[in-house]
Amino acid sequence: WWWLKAMIIGVVQKIIKLGQDDPRRVIHSLKVGIALTLVSLIYYSRPLYDGFGAAGMWAVLTVVVVFEFTVGATLGKGLNRGFATLLAGALGVGAHHFASLCGEKGEPIILGLSTFLIAATSTFSRFFPRIKRRYDYGVVIFILTFSLVSVSGYRVDKIIKMAHQRLLTIIIGGVTCVTVSIFICPVWAGEDLHNLVAQNMEMIANFLEGFGGEYFRSPEDGDSPVISKNQKPFLKEYKSVLNSKATEESLANFASWEPGHGCFRFRHPWKQYLQIGTLNRQCAYLVEALNGCINSEIQVPSEFRKKIRKACTDMSLECGNALKELALAIKEMRQPCLADPPVESAKTAAGDLKTTLKTAFIENSDLLAIMSAATVASLLVEIVHCTDKIAKSVH
Amino acid sequence: WWWLKAMIIGVVQKIIKLGQDDPRRVIHSLKVGIALTLVSLIYYSRPLYDGFGAAGMWAVLTVVVVFEFTVGATLGKGLNRGFATLLAGALGVGAHHFASLCGEKGEPIILGLSTFLIAATSTFSRFFPRIKRRYDYGVVIFILTFSLVSVSGYRVDKIIKMAHQRLLTIIIGGVTCVTVSIFICPVWAGEDLHNLVAQNMEMIANFLEGFGGEYFRSPEDGDSPVISKNQKPFLKEYKSVLNSKATEESLANFASWEPGHGCFRFRHPWKQYLQIGTLNRQCAYLVEALNGCINSEIQVPSEFRKKIRKACTDMSLECGNALKELALAIKEMRQPCLADPPVESAKTAAGDLKTTLKTAFIENSDLLAIMSAATVASLLVEIVHCTDKIAKSVH
Repeated sequence: WWWLKAMIIGVVQKIIKLGQDDPRRVIHSLKVGIALTLVSLIYYSRPLYDGFGAAGMWAVLTVVVVFEFTVGATLGKGLNRGFATLLAGALGVGAHHFASLCGEKGEPIILGLSTFLIAATSTFSRFFPRIKRRYDYGVVIFILTFSLVSVSGYRVDKIIKMAHQRLLTIIIGGVTCVTVSIFICPVWAGEDLHNLVAQNMEMIANFLEGFGGEYFRSPEDGDSPVISKNQKPFLKEYKSVLNSKATEESLANFASWEPGHGCFRFRHPWKQYLQIGTLNRQCAYLVEALNGCINSEIQVPSEFRKKIRKACTDMSLECGNALKELALAIKEMRQPCLADPPVESAKTAAGDLKTTLKTAFIENSDLLAIMSAATVASLLVEIVHCTDKIAKSVH
Repeated sequence: WWWLKAMIIGVVQKIIKLGQDDPRRVIHSLKVGIALTLVSLIYYSRPLYDGFGAAGMWAVLTVVVVFEFTVGATLGKGLNRGFATLLAGALGVGAHHFASLCGEKGEPIILGLSTFLIAATSTFSRFFPRIKRRYDYGVVIFILTFSLVSVSGYRVDKIIKMAHQRLLTIIIGGVTCVTVSIFICPVWAGEDLHNLVAQNMEMIANFLEGFGGEYFRSPEDGDSPVISKNQKPFLKEYKSVLNSKATEESLANFASWEPGHGCFRFRHPWKQYLQIGTLNRQCAYLVEALNGCINSEIQVPSEFRKKIRKACTDMSLECGNALKELALAIKEMRQPCLADPPVESAKTAAGDLKTTLKTAFIENSDLLAIMSAATVASLLVEIVHCTDKIAKSVH
């Protein structure tokens, strides 16, 4: 009993955490409930039921399958479903009409053959990347509706009336979904994408701002690196940026279905976010290599360390500043005018580093020892380039 | 007209290319057609139709929605659909019975309320990562079936017979899918995952094998780097490894639904592939940083270059060899006994490099110039570590 109680408490805590992490999840669940209950009214109320008959089922089906977390995904699926049903319904009626001309025996053969052909070619078309991305669901519904209409047309005589009813109920279901999705606390994919890109940039910036202090902390400073690392989440936060590609692409895809909202107009250049996201990831790969250097055990001679310390810390701090400013500019949708000074000073710091290294007289020629530090320096120079690129693409 | 002709030729070429890239796509399309036509027979043949009535529609619906490219995905969806329908059907009948006890007026209220509650809680449960990964489709079907059964139960009196018929047709549809999917040229997700991981490793190996020659090619060697780079696909191939996480995870998920096949038994340790995949990606991030160094324009003094050339080329070649052997061992499912020697010699080369650097007397103290080469060297040392880790995890 005690075990059961502990398990239940664990599950409840997980549920609460899930809800607190993103309260929109709770709202979304309630929205689905509302939409479904609204559509069920078609069944309950006698006058509507008499109009639609059993086709009311399709409204319920549409709501359950089409309602998604973001407005874009819901709209995309709804439109796909609507148009695919219309097209496939028309084709199905056509196929049925054509088959009925072939006599009693030819009819099932023609219908079977056309179902096979439509199913095979449509399934193949789903492998085209462009169709897969935007119309995958539509193609599935197309196959489904065509086979249902053409096949059941073989039995039901009032086929046109049936197709008409089915389309109408699907439209009712779709419109209910879209309305509830847009007018009750909408979740816009575009806004999510916008925030995600800015947030990723910020996480990289956090790492860079902290990196200088972490790498050049002299051993005399005291606190053991093992303890401090666990207390510093910014050293691991950036890792989620490395695998952000799939999320960004699906959000951009959903966003392209959305109408104008908030400060985004219709046909907002969502593809630019993908470009910035790619640059973010490039920067994150360099940061990952840099992170490897923190854990390196080779002791860099303190003299050399001192020489490059200033330039390196400056570079990483200024890059961090620039990225933070860029992220803020994206969030507030303005020109990132304050990002140029830090980028410039990061470039100056890179130049300083170059002259330092050129003129540096190496007392002990132990190249091995300074190698790790040199790697850090050159990675930072790369990051400066990358930051510069990001700044340009944000403009 | 000419324009239309060119467009059609373009599309046809694309279709042929898509089919040639992976002939299993064509076969998959034909399989969907076959499964759908088989199920349509339920409608066509009079004795079966009399048994099932309009419920035969659910078999068609199931085939269209459940049939996926890999066996694992099809099985997963089919099982999800079957169990969700069973559970939701039982619950729906229960809710309907309970509601009918509450009298004429209470019935729609109780039913509406229960639909709302089930829909909201189930939708929320989809946000749990574990449920999302394996049972997402099942939850959707659960909501769908529950609302359909409880709602239409309000009208149709023979509710149990209906639920029974519907479940039976769904099972027929599901079994058809799974049978066609397994017995006609099956596409196993597990096999795909297996090959993908090995292939990713090979692509990294190709890069490393070619890298030494590319980076240390002396300018006197002749051929312009711009031309040669386009002729060397291995320099770009590895980029697909960077974003392979999502694909690997979904394949591993599908694979866990699959029964034993070929040389994989049921409950093959698919998670190990994910671990190896993660290490692959870590290696690829380092390779990405290394790739940045190839394009660097800083001229490394040829004297220093000569000194580290042998050790660096050895490291990258031996790592490449080791990874190739590991990839081969994965493909052939045997112990990678031949991978140890190259890993060892890569480690020796790393040691050699260390002593070279320690004893190197630097004639010109221009640190800046050698920095890029030093970075390459230290990244290669990291890659040696990473290769070692991969070798251990493959064992």
